[in-house]
Amino acid sequence: MTIPVKAYAAQSPSSPLAPFDFERRDLRDNDVEIDILYCGVCHSDLHTARADWGEAFSLYPVVPGHEIVGRVKSIGSAVSKYKVGDLVGVGCMVDSCQECPPCHHDLEQFCEQGMTGTYSSRDRIDGSITQGGYSTGIVVREEFVLRVPESLDTKAVAPLLCAGITTYSPLRHWNVKPGSKVAVIGLGGLGHMAIKLAKAMGAEVSLFTRSKGKEQDAYALGASRVIYSTDEAAMQAAANQFDLIIDTVPYTHDLKPYIPTLALDGTLVLVGLVGELEQTISTVPLLFGRRSIAASLIGGIKETQEMLDFCAEHNVLPEVEMIDMQNINEAYERMLKSDVKYRFVIDMESLKK
Amino acid sequence: MTIPVKAYAAQSPSSPLAPFDFERRDLRDNDVEIDILYCGVCHSDLHTARADWGEAFSLYPVVPGHEIVGRVKSIGSAVSKYKVGDLVGVGCMVDSCQECPPCHHDLEQFCEQGMTGTYSSRDRIDGSITQGGYSTGIVVREEFVLRVPESLDTKAVAPLLCAGITTYSPLRHWNVKPGSKVAVIGLGGLGHMAIKLAKAMGAEVSLFTRSKGKEQDAYALGASRVIYSTDEAAMQAAANQFDLIIDTVPYTHDLKPYIPTLALDGTLVLVGLVGELEQTISTVPLLFGRRSIAASLIGGIKETQEMLDFCAEHNVLPEVEMIDMQNINEAYERMLKSDVKYRFVIDMESLKK
Repeated sequence: MTIPVKAYAAQSPSSPLAPFDFERRDLRDNDVEIDILYCGVCHSDLHTARADWGEAFSLYPVVPGHEIVGRVKSIGSAVSKYKVGDLVGVGCMVDSCQECPPCHHDLEQFCEQGMTGTYSSRDRIDGSITQGGYSTGIVVREEFVLRVPESLDTKAVAPLLCAGITTYSPLRHWNVKPGSKVAVIGLGGLGHMAIKLAKAMGAEVSLFTRSKGKEQDAYALGASRVIYSTDEAAMQAAANQFDLIIDTVPYTHDLKPYIPTLALDGTLVLVGLVGELEQTISTVPLLFGRRSIAASLIGGIKETQEMLDFCAEHNVLPEVEMIDMQNINEAYERMLKSDVKYRFVIDMESLKK
Repeated sequence: MTIPVKAYAAQSPSSPLAPFDFERRDLRDNDVEIDILYCGVCHSDLHTARADWGEAFSLYPVVPGHEIVGRVKSIGSAVSKYKVGDLVGVGCMVDSCQECPPCHHDLEQFCEQGMTGTYSSRDRIDGSITQGGYSTGIVVREEFVLRVPESLDTKAVAPLLCAGITTYSPLRHWNVKPGSKVAVIGLGGLGHMAIKLAKAMGAEVSLFTRSKGKEQDAYALGASRVIYSTDEAAMQAAANQFDLIIDTVPYTHDLKPYIPTLALDGTLVLVGLVGELEQTISTVPLLFGRRSIAASLIGGIKETQEMLDFCAEHNVLPEVEMIDMQNINEAYERMLKSDVKYRFVIDMESLKK
């Protein structure tokens, strides 16, 4: 017995998101049905809705949304981790092979057969298109459902499921700890979480930005320093300082100004850009400092749970602006202009009326 | 009392190397005078002699040579590590500040004040131009003199001081151990050492090459596999395999074909190229595998000694072709055509006649 839900979908790269009713699958034994309370709005939602990464990554209709928070409404017969009423979350993945070495190492995002995305992916069993969280409900295999600590402000939790884990994972992987010097490039959804999380881990955090007027916010979020990347003297003064740079910029850009600001053995990790860098790389600043350039993709399920628990322990939450589902197209336009502090979250109550 | 030596020098970017007599400094308290037996011929020698990296890096007259093996001829009054007659070596550095954090961590190559190169650098005390090993003798501060194990074939040791440490250091830094999968790009002076050293560390070693006909050599050096980088099917079959790639190519080239052959969390380390890569980098293959691109520069003095001892223990030595000093210009031309298996070594006896 399938489950009717209301949602918002893009029907083509050029059509705005509009109401779309469809059926979620009947629960399999290991499935959890979630009544969605909130869903964050990620740049990837917009990129997928508009086929910015090519049509292969956009299976229409596209119901975006992979920062999902809700309560368990029903469970399959074999579900053991969750019961009806539990506060839960779903991030960017809803399945993986569970058998390859990365899956065995809790790195489902690197599943050798390809993870199943929360939307615009193919379900591994019935081949249907997965549909995301801009919806009143969702059905997800229990292994890919996260437990959301009840102590956190439920309204603000959603962006942790993508923006949170995307920045938490590289901070952990590259061993940020008390005393680490971390810089963040870009103050948006990802950037503001990177500052908060790095600070909560005990790092000394700097923000690189091109836009004036971000000091107050940056300091309030936990940064101790703001460096304008267009100020050559300031960039030179920042040479050789950072153990880790989290680069959250989602459009093509030039890494050249930032690499010399890495300390010896420092790493610049790209988490925002899917595509080509703007300029070629010179080996010289890499050679003279054994520096690295890397990229990192969300995080595994176990680490996502760890991140949620870390955020509960340290009371780290995104700054959010609540919107109704009906305002999503306007929100996309504002997001493109970086006119959001710092993440939109859809109150799904607006879709249930 | 200065020390007269015979040498070969370039007097300008366009002049071939020619005989050049000059005086080494009188011994300071902590100096070692070395009677040079052999000196390896490195690509950097040629680049510096010809000002390929810009005139700032070429202080004329240039006496190249930073793969130096010889015997201690005399010592300063405070020298404690070496005595007359000891077999010793000198690599790419002859001094550093000894006081900054990198120097304190045995990473003198990253000295915050800049290491003093063996040639075409300025002596930290008297400001004179340092002159390298294409010479009958050299005077070097004892902290920058290496002990060469007597058990090694002295003729072949010299290239370890640059080609050896340049490949040994990243293999160690990125934790190559028994079972590691290592690939080497390019089979020249650096590449053939990378294969031998990685093999001696217990890795399974592959060679990437553009040129046919290198299988036999590669297998003899310790590789278990040769992959032609121009063969697209072979490159695709090599996807996701290597924990570490040592890229020894000394000219601008495109990394794109190699990055997908890195395993999850794999790193491609550039050791041969000083300059720009040929193409921009896409983040996609970095994201989907948390891969890194890095670069590594020679190694510190302590690690260079460790490398010499490792080579003695495992009997790892470069393949060398001995030449007379008088044939250096012809050797440079052959090196430019990769017509050397795999490193020229100058028998300094030829200069003493």
